[in-house]
Amino acid sequence: MNALSLDRLETPCLLLDEERMAANIARLKKHLAILNVPLRPHLKTAKSLDVARLLMQGPKGPITVSTIREAEYFAEHGVCDILYAVGITRNKLERASVLRKQGVDLSVVVDSIPAAQALVSHAREIGDRIPALIEIDADGHRSGVRLSDSEMLVEIGRLLHEEGILKGVMTHAGDSYACRNMEALVSAAEQERAITVACAQALRVSGLPCSVVSIGSTPTAHAARDLTGITEVRAGVFVFFDLVMAGVGVCSIEDIALSVLATIIGRQHDRGWIIVDAGWMAMSRDRGTGKQQTDQGYGLVCDLNGDAYPDMLMLEANQEHGILGVRPGSEAILPNLRIGDLVRILPNHACATAAQHDVYNVIMRDSKHQVQARWTRFRGW
Amino acid sequence: MNALSLDRLETPCLLLDEERMAANIARLKKHLAILNVPLRPHLKTAKSLDVARLLMQGPKGPITVSTIREAEYFAEHGVCDILYAVGITRNKLERASVLRKQGVDLSVVVDSIPAAQALVSHAREIGDRIPALIEIDADGHRSGVRLSDSEMLVEIGRLLHEEGILKGVMTHAGDSYACRNMEALVSAAEQERAITVACAQALRVSGLPCSVVSIGSTPTAHAARDLTGITEVRAGVFVFFDLVMAGVGVCSIEDIALSVLATIIGRQHDRGWIIVDAGWMAMSRDRGTGKQQTDQGYGLVCDLNGDAYPDMLMLEANQEHGILGVRPGSEAILPNLRIGDLVRILPNHACATAAQHDVYNVIMRDSKHQVQARWTRFRGW
Repeated sequence: MNALSLDRLETPCLLLDEERMAANIARLKKHLAILNVPLRPHLKTAKSLDVARLLMQGPKGPITVSTIREAEYFAEHGVCDILYAVGITRNKLERASVLRKQGVDLSVVVDSIPAAQALVSHAREIGDRIPALIEIDADGHRSGVRLSDSEMLVEIGRLLHEEGILKGVMTHAGDSYACRNMEALVSAAEQERAITVACAQALRVSGLPCSVVSIGSTPTAHAARDLTGITEVRAGVFVFFDLVMAGVGVCSIEDIALSVLATIIGRQHDRGWIIVDAGWMAMSRDRGTGKQQTDQGYGLVCDLNGDAYPDMLMLEANQEHGILGVRPGSEAILPNLRIGDLVRILPNHACATAAQHDVYNVIMRDSKHQVQARWTRFRGW
Repeated sequence: MNALSLDRLETPCLLLDEERMAANIARLKKHLAILNVPLRPHLKTAKSLDVARLLMQGPKGPITVSTIREAEYFAEHGVCDILYAVGITRNKLERASVLRKQGVDLSVVVDSIPAAQALVSHAREIGDRIPALIEIDADGHRSGVRLSDSEMLVEIGRLLHEEGILKGVMTHAGDSYACRNMEALVSAAEQERAITVACAQALRVSGLPCSVVSIGSTPTAHAARDLTGITEVRAGVFVFFDLVMAGVGVCSIEDIALSVLATIIGRQHDRGWIIVDAGWMAMSRDRGTGKQQTDQGYGLVCDLNGDAYPDMLMLEANQEHGILGVRPGSEAILPNLRIGDLVRILPNHACATAAQHDVYNVIMRDSKHQVQARWTRFRGW
């Protein structure tokens, strides 16, 4: 496509700053290279082949996905080493096996006897032995078997191993999102590593194989100082970063590669409001920074260069309207923006905001923020 | 399609109870028929031709939309009386005029001199005189000109009228969502009516035409006792209803027609958690009930018949994981659900939850909740 300046776009739409993204990708890859552990990028954030190609070690993967749809999409485009990292259900096994018949090395995740039994039954009935990782609960965040439940862990492991489908263990240190400083992050990363490695060890001392020891979250991936015993790291949001990650402390506001372009459609001067044509449909309803020290509302407002206005937030969001104003308590003065002017709004949560859009408008700083490409996204299950 | 039982669906997916929806539609239509005011349904909630056909007076409309994409989609399917109810921006005028050239009677909304001037310039440069409504701020919710700013109102009106494009006034009483009892709702509805009619009158006494006096929100549409002076009512979420509307008091839980079907993928017994394969990607991040008297978390959990379990909520949502548990403070006991079982989850906000999906799985109670049809949705701008 020919380069297009931002004022030629229809709003609202999603902008992706390619240089920031490239720097974000390089940063994690460099860190993991020093720790000598490969990355299995989580593509639930990007859901885009163009972004995937910049992330993957090679055209065949490996990758992590959060839906069978993602697995199918990337498989269609040649990726063949895929971990589906949400506990598998019986109603998804058919599509999983179709992919595997096509030559895709698709692995799945279980954290209970019934789920393991479903995989074993499927293998016996359909003849497709789908390799499985046992999910470990390293921090009480969500799913997984605990290290203290090592009997259960070994029982699940034995069930899978008898069918020849035990591949290893995996965890997601989701509670690291609640960390607020580097010390806490380093400690969360070490806890994630140590517990997952200990679970792998518990399987091995029971005579079970455990070739894969997989961990992952953007905060812990960046904070890890040592990854002894870990065979791969999964992370997704590090590609774009967002206000939540800035609040956690793993990036700065200036690293955030994703923003929503919006047009000013109205003003309510005495209330200090500027109304834009981007509401929650464009930003998502994600208010992840609401629990953090600095609440960024529905997003931090920037000028067309992507530089933040002081303390200017999207205070409220309706479906297709956003209300911009000054952060409560701040004495900042609203910029002199007029109806028809454009702003860029940084998201709380890149995964959620990107999910509201079907296209990334890819911009490059050294071309004065012109749109250089349009990359498509997909969605669904 | 052949009828399909719910346990044959892949999860997560969106269910639409056709009988509940039909009753919801009939209820508002009956109410407005008594008040003798036509409905211009807002299709931002449904974004579906199948639903639109059940809502519209006839195949040609009238309808309300929140994006040009919606206008284009419904116009492709024969609808030709369309109000685009978000303040118009210059970057959308081209597509608006393309629709009008195709014979669509598309009107737009402005609430400022610059926006009115942009319409006038467009008419002079392109030759397309797009009819406009002036948006009125009836309750301080968001956009619009206030009754106390009648000078501004008349100035905008005169600008539009000189170009022959002044069609009338419109408002959206969005603050009615904050009402908590019928008395407050009735009062909000009367305020919406009275202020909008007074603004129409202010235009008329200045010698300006005002043929359309349009109001709308689901709570005020249902609560209105008298609509003297109003020429049309817009409403959208009344079709499906949701937990927020139940909290406002305009429907009961049993009226909610939309739910998300999910599969149980794990349990954390000692934490009282049940994990399902529906997270915020399926439910949206909307937490509208968080500000209401009864906080329903990310949704209220029901059995396969759509009957709510006592005090069982989606307490937390990650991208593709939901954590179900008992409402904080409740002594209810979790139902004995096993891994692989299905549940249905009622949404906070029907517009936001439906927006996460591309298909409605239409179920009918008298056929034991079998899926009778699949209706597609669209999205984008």
